[in-house]
Amino acid sequence: MNFLEERILKDGVVKEGNVLKVDSFLNHQMDINLFDQMGEEFKKRFAGKKINKILTIEASGIGIACIVARHFNVPVVFAKKSKSINIDGETYVAQVESFTHKCVNQVLVSKRFLSPEDNILIIDDFLANGCALRGLISIIENAGATVSGIGIAIEKGFQRGGKEIREAGYQLESLAIVEEMDAKNGTVTFR
Amino acid sequence: MNFLEERILKDGVVKEGNVLKVDSFLNHQMDINLFDQMGEEFKKRFAGKKINKILTIEASGIGIACIVARHFNVPVVFAKKSKSINIDGETYVAQVESFTHKCVNQVLVSKRFLSPEDNILIIDDFLANGCALRGLISIIENAGATVSGIGIAIEKGFQRGGKEIREAGYQLESLAIVEEMDAKNGTVTFR
Repeated sequence: MNFLEERILKDGVVKEGNVLKVDSFLNHQMDINLFDQMGEEFKKRFAGKKINKILTIEASGIGIACIVARHFNVPVVFAKKSKSINIDGETYVAQVESFTHKCVNQVLVSKRFLSPEDNILIIDDFLANGCALRGLISIIENAGATVSGIGIAIEKGFQRGGKEIREAGYQLESLAIVEEMDAKNGTVTFR
Repeated sequence: MNFLEERILKDGVVKEGNVLKVDSFLNHQMDINLFDQMGEEFKKRFAGKKINKILTIEASGIGIACIVARHFNVPVVFAKKSKSINIDGETYVAQVESFTHKCVNQVLVSKRFLSPEDNILIIDDFLANGCALRGLISIIENAGATVSGIGIAIEKGFQRGGKEIREAGYQLESLAIVEEMDAKNGTVTFR
C-alpha cells in the first residue's frame, strides 16, 4: 500500500452514492507535504517522458498540479470553467460533465498557452467517468500538442474512465485506484 | 522595482476598464518559479507571525497559496465558490462580488477546517475593491480564528480595498501595488 492509499484509509470518508470524501487533505484542505510526495512519485513514473508543461482543471486540480510542477520544473496551465472577461481572444473549448456538481461546464484554455511544440502532462485529483480528462485531452489535441502522460491522485476503478483512457493508448498513472467502496462499513478496497 | 513588478512590466497587458492581464504567468498559465519567489518574500514579510494555515479562494489563488505554503510548512484551505455535494455538514459562508466575473458568489469553507486555535495567512492573486478579502476575513472571524496577515500578489492601489483593510488594522502585504494603468499607452505605474 502506498502513501496515498494509506492516507485515504486514515482520513477518507465513504459516503452513499459512491462519494469518497478526501476534503481534509486533498481537495478543500490541502496537505502540501502529501502533494510533494505525489510529485516525487509522478516524476518517477513519467521518467524519460518529454514534458514541458502541466495542464489541469480548476479548482481542485490546481494545488496538486502546482506542487507536482516543481518536480518537473515546468509551468502549469489550468482550464477555466466559465468565460470571464479576463479570457479574451481565442480559446480552446471542451464540454465537461461534473460528477460532483451534476452539471455540464464549458472549459476553456487560451490558445496562447498551448502550441504544437508542447508536450503536456495532465494532472487532476479524481478520475471517475473520465469526462474532465477527455475534455482536457481534446483541448490538447485540438492545439496540435502532445499528451505525454496523465497523472491522477485517486481513480475510481469501478467507473469506466480509466479503462477507456488506457485502452486509447495514453500512459495514465493513478496513485490510488479504488476498486470498491462500502458506505455502510466505511471500507475502501484498492486495486 | 521588485521581481513581480518587473515581470508585470515585461509580460502584463493593460486593457480598457482597468483590467491588468497577467494570465501568461499568474492566473491562467502559472510560473511556479515566480510563485516560489513570492513565497520567499512573504516568509520574510510575515517573519515572527504565528501562522499554522493558509486560506485562499478558488480558483486563481490556489496555485500561489500552495507554493507559498511550502515556505511556511502549513496546509492550505481554499474557499469554494458554489455548494457541491462534496461539502456536507456545516460551512462558514460569505457573499463575494467578483470584479472579473461581474456576479455575486457565495463562498464556503467547511467548519471542520477552521477553529479558534488557527492563525491564518490569507493569500490571493488580486486585491481591488476588497470584496473577496472581506469575505475571507469574515469567514475566519466567524470561526473565532485569527487573521495573522494577508499576502496579495497584485493590488490595484487606485481602488479602495487595500486602504480600507489596512485602516482596519490588518497586516496587508501586496508584492506589487499598481498606482496607475493606461490602456492607451500600455503603461503601468507602481506605488
